Amino acid sequence: MIHLRYRTVELKLNHTFRLSRGATDGRQNLIVEIEHEGIIGLGEAAPISHYDQDCASAADAVDAMVRRLDDPRCFDSAAQRVAVPGQPAAEAAVDMALRDLAGKRLGVPLYELMGLDPGVMPVTSFTIGLDRPEAVARKVREASAFPVLKVKMGSDDDRPILEAVRRATNRPIRVDANEGWSFDEALSRLEWLQEMGVELVEQPLPAGRLEESRELRHASPLPIIADESVHTAADIPRLAGAFDGINIKLMKCGGIGEALRMIAVARAHGMKVMLGCMIESSLAITAAAHLAPLCDYADLDGHLLIKEDPFVGATVDKGRLVLPKGPGLGVVSR
Amino acid sequence: MIHLRYRTVELKLNHTFRLSRGATDGRQNLIVEIEHEGIIGLGEAAPISHYDQDCASAADAVDAMVRRLDDPRCFDSAAQRVAVPGQPAAEAAVDMALRDLAGKRLGVPLYELMGLDPGVMPVTSFTIGLDRPEAVARKVREASAFPVLKVKMGSDDDRPILEAVRRATNRPIRVDANEGWSFDEALSRLEWLQEMGVELVEQPLPAGRLEESRELRHASPLPIIADESVHTAADIPRLAGAFDGINIKLMKCGGIGEALRMIAVARAHGMKVMLGCMIESSLAITAAAHLAPLCDYADLDGHLLIKEDPFVGATVDKGRLVLPKGPGLGVVSR
Repeated sequence: MIHLRYRTVELKLNHTFRLSRGATDGRQNLIVEIEHEGIIGLGEAAPISHYDQDCASAADAVDAMVRRLDDPRCFDSAAQRVAVPGQPAAEAAVDMALRDLAGKRLGVPLYELMGLDPGVMPVTSFTIGLDRPEAVARKVREASAFPVLKVKMGSDDDRPILEAVRRATNRPIRVDANEGWSFDEALSRLEWLQEMGVELVEQPLPAGRLEESRELRHASPLPIIADESVHTAADIPRLAGAFDGINIKLMKCGGIGEALRMIAVARAHGMKVMLGCMIESSLAITAAAHLAPLCDYADLDGHLLIKEDPFVGATVDKGRLVLPKGPGLGVVSR
Repeated sequence: MIHLRYRTVELKLNHTFRLSRGATDGRQNLIVEIEHEGIIGLGEAAPISHYDQDCASAADAVDAMVRRLDDPRCFDSAAQRVAVPGQPAAEAAVDMALRDLAGKRLGVPLYELMGLDPGVMPVTSFTIGLDRPEAVARKVREASAFPVLKVKMGSDDDRPILEAVRRATNRPIRVDANEGWSFDEALSRLEWLQEMGVELVEQPLPAGRLEESRELRHASPLPIIADESVHTAADIPRLAGAFDGINIKLMKCGGIGEALRMIAVARAHGMKVMLGCMIESSLAITAAAHLAPLCDYADLDGHLLIKEDPFVGATVDKGRLVLPKGPGLGVVSR
């Protein structure tokens, strides 16, 4: 017998979050519990409204998936078999709950189930949201514990924002344009970004513009990472040559199983791997963090941007991710 | 403390085995035991002489790898870190021994550690070696338990051999040319092979001939599977378009970890996956069989071709592979 429970949680942001395509003060995620033989596996969905998902559609999808589950021990086979198309956040919640369940049943952390070394974790960047230059400088000071910063760009204020960050710190900066630039804008900014000590640029152009991305990468002095251009492993082959790496997010790809496949495909194409997130509690962030030993860059700060995190899981020590040692995901309620 | 022991075993064949590049009556494989905290993980290397490996070089490589191991629980991270270039059979032995150890420590079969469903196993083909037509007919009758046959080709007798098999049975046949044909030979044979009820053709052309393979695939009415053209995941992207699928062998790729990555890369390119083997005991065959739920075709008959198999593991029921339920690989000494 498998029991399913879910509830929405309200995650409130410390700072209003501005992207090139809008602003938000918080978001609702779906928390999923899958119970089997007295053990509870936890999962979280952060539905992406940009791709027409919300908590209601995610809950429906989780319901449909769990009804079709038979043996939850087959977490990889089952998760692929019951997946609901167009609902990757719900898929991710079910996938992580089944892996949490498996780790708890066997009494080992998920990283050990996968044979990964928790001692080789990357640092995580900390995101500075779009804001007025003086507010940006204050946010940079607040983020002094993080050795790498990520700056959201794609507005008309790109130049003063980055200059404000650079005045406030000499730490490496990663830039995320969230599809916000045209080809000419991107081309004219890349050299300046390099001079400003930027380490890499995420998704400078709109997702569909593959030929332009190829040309931009050819001209770029900085590595260019695909985010909106890549959802699942099947997207990666056509990105080879157009990007230096990919940003994997559980909520885009549908869970840890697909993330593992994406890492394999990216590596086969000689591409770098970044692990990213949406605004998520420590539950989904920790699930992603179990994959961090396989990745070059981590951008797992979603749980650090919210006021009252309902869970405790992976922590950050001098910017480096630290995995919890408890069984499964190792996440507990706060 | 990690203790390593290894020994060679002599595997004698039921029938002299003829390939397009030679014949053999048996072979020596290396059996590896990695002991940690009182638990023994078993591995097997079938060194490939065609690629300049033998039991001595494999033993040296296993030695070097195990000396560099620290925590055997990190089976995936560790196996990649300590790998010795050019010794994939030794790598495979260490990789499978570490996964056997992990499964035994946690008390679950390897398929469960990977979350795979042991109820969705493919049938395995049974190989009919190159021989005189009358001997081939006898071998086909001996293989009556197998619903799919594999016929080795690439000699001057290709036509009478296949005709002898077809006279003896109407079961589907897979053909393995082992790089034995020229482009013109392959092209002229494919239509005839289809008429003869052949299901697919493995490696018709020499490994390097990618442009010819692309052309051949375009003209072929049958799926064409890469074997000698593919060793590891990094080989796969350039094969897309030139082959319909890949044959994964643990002894070519270096173990279960790399095999999982190859499956992910093949799927991302829309390619089929076959699981193959060398002449191996039930130990290495069973290790590969744990991956079979992820594959389209299995050709795991190496242990069925030998006289005295030193191990008991995966079995075959009406041609379908059946995984043992014991912890780890589930393999025990006979």
